[in-house]
Amino acid sequence: MRDVAERAGVSIATVSFVVNNTKRVAPATRERIEAAMAELGFRRNVVARALASRRTHILAVAYPALQHRLGSTAMGFITSAASAASEHDYHLVLWPVDNDGGELSELMREGLVDGIVLMEVLLHDPRVDTLLSARMPFAMIGRTADPTGLAFVDIDFEVTVEKGLDHLQGLGHREIVFVSERPPSEAFRAYGAKVRAEAAFRRSCAERGLEPVIVECAQNAAGGRELAHELIEARPRTTAIMIMNEHAAFGVVSGLARRGVRVPTDLSLLSISTSSDMGATSDPVLSIMRSPGKELGRLGVELVIAQLEGNEPPGSRLLPCELEPGESTAPAPPSPPSPMIMNTS
Amino acid sequence: MRDVAERAGVSIATVSFVVNNTKRVAPATRERIEAAMAELGFRRNVVARALASRRTHILAVAYPALQHRLGSTAMGFITSAASAASEHDYHLVLWPVDNDGGELSELMREGLVDGIVLMEVLLHDPRVDTLLSARMPFAMIGRTADPTGLAFVDIDFEVTVEKGLDHLQGLGHREIVFVSERPPSEAFRAYGAKVRAEAAFRRSCAERGLEPVIVECAQNAAGGRELAHELIEARPRTTAIMIMNEHAAFGVVSGLARRGVRVPTDLSLLSISTSSDMGATSDPVLSIMRSPGKELGRLGVELVIAQLEGNEPPGSRLLPCELEPGESTAPAPPSPPSPMIMNTS
Repeated sequence: MRDVAERAGVSIATVSFVVNNTKRVAPATRERIEAAMAELGFRRNVVARALASRRTHILAVAYPALQHRLGSTAMGFITSAASAASEHDYHLVLWPVDNDGGELSELMREGLVDGIVLMEVLLHDPRVDTLLSARMPFAMIGRTADPTGLAFVDIDFEVTVEKGLDHLQGLGHREIVFVSERPPSEAFRAYGAKVRAEAAFRRSCAERGLEPVIVECAQNAAGGRELAHELIEARPRTTAIMIMNEHAAFGVVSGLARRGVRVPTDLSLLSISTSSDMGATSDPVLSIMRSPGKELGRLGVELVIAQLEGNEPPGSRLLPCELEPGESTAPAPPSPPSPMIMNTS
Repeated sequence: MRDVAERAGVSIATVSFVVNNTKRVAPATRERIEAAMAELGFRRNVVARALASRRTHILAVAYPALQHRLGSTAMGFITSAASAASEHDYHLVLWPVDNDGGELSELMREGLVDGIVLMEVLLHDPRVDTLLSARMPFAMIGRTADPTGLAFVDIDFEVTVEKGLDHLQGLGHREIVFVSERPPSEAFRAYGAKVRAEAAFRRSCAERGLEPVIVECAQNAAGGRELAHELIEARPRTTAIMIMNEHAAFGVVSGLARRGVRVPTDLSLLSISTSSDMGATSDPVLSIMRSPGKELGRLGVELVIAQLEGNEPPGSRLLPCELEPGESTAPAPPSPPSPMIMNTS
């Protein structure tokens, strides 16, 4: 600090005020001191703080970068997690790591981060064991098969699917197909979100006396178009689709249109676990169940910080997606024996 | 280290092998040592390294979080920047900061990062002055009005627009409208990408003897639909649209369809500075000029690291978008005096 004071032509006390932010210093003086600090490569807070407190005030978001296409929910999540961290005076680093825990383990050994937010959690996720055995504070966005005792925030798929079915049944639909993502690899077959949503659909259909038809398609518009064609052939009595595959939803609409099936007149489409922006990209604008992506990001970060600061943890939470009716759901076409209109235009 | 050795029941030398990664240690022993380190809150590399070298091996990506909707290019960019940093043994933190340089300045004072990658650069960007006066190594994704002497990677809008016009003119189009983004705020009116692409379009049209018509629309599908209606009224002779507004492109297609204008039979649409995924979401699949988002992310990080490591800097680079013909561009409809077909269906 003496060097800085000398170079800036001020007292050591003044440098200290600036460094520790303990007293207001005239802007011109502050600038001179900061220029001197920059010239001398003086690093103010982080390293000193890390030594004193064994804390770096850095959190990591760990996500499998290349294995799974990030949806609009995940992007909203990362952005709001970074903002939430920043409000609590933490930094957020991005760790694109594989799912097996190896890379995560290596990165943790560097001692850079105080805690970790885990994204794209599998039902049996090796990263969780890695984190537990390293005693690293963490929170999951999503959850393992049995998340008892772990900190997590996740979408409440039970309630989401219930509400979605309420909406469709309220419009008179009885032949409802659930469309989920075809996993890009075997590991993602145990992707919690997919497994839980499908299970919720199955159970809820059973309670309602509906046949629980579940099909998968690739995570893109071409996959959706292909699915539309298959569905028209294989299940012409379908009057509504609940889809949890936002990148395919557009393709479903256009694939149906190509076969002369009009949304929503002939068939209703409800896109779940997605964003308003994604829904508005389609024509007709999709009825959606909006993911709480931003809330998940904020809560995930706050769960980790609470552990670090020894505060009462906010508790793990499940948040449902909220229904935002658009133009793609409407009353079921009349008469039970009416198959989908197949007018190849 | 003595504490760790004691707790793990090994010699100090063995602990040192593990800590410094200098010699192979049996996995079981390594695990015991790591467990002991974790229990004692022992932080291995980062803090020690920061003290020794005055380096933290952390880079920040600074982007204005709430002011501008991030496109698919930006998302690809952040993901690949994180991967590139990780390959070079650096970490990437996300800094959602405002555009005026104030927050950036505060964050820099913490001494956390060695260098910064700046996104969403304005022509006169206060953040650049902040970085220069703090002598912080940085690279821009994008560039200011005069980027001489600064490290940057950016899209080559000149070449991109030229190639796009070559494609459309090669198909016989002469009445071409350029659609850009309506800025979400006054500050973004001086967004480099927008200004440069529009200027390139104006200049290139002048050289080709074409009328340079430029219109703006909001960054969403509704904006695109509105634009389609306006265009049919105001410029019925238009046969091709070059659009740099990926979130509106779908709306343009569906707005045209609602008015009975078929893409590409009646009108061609070329979406520039976007991704294949975004193009494939439309039906017909859009012809696009693909943004080099991933390359920009990688190069941006490498430009900063080269400065930090004192290597020969790779040099600032401009990369053009590459044409990926889809189903939305086709030969111009015959006969010069043919206005767009306006068959309100």
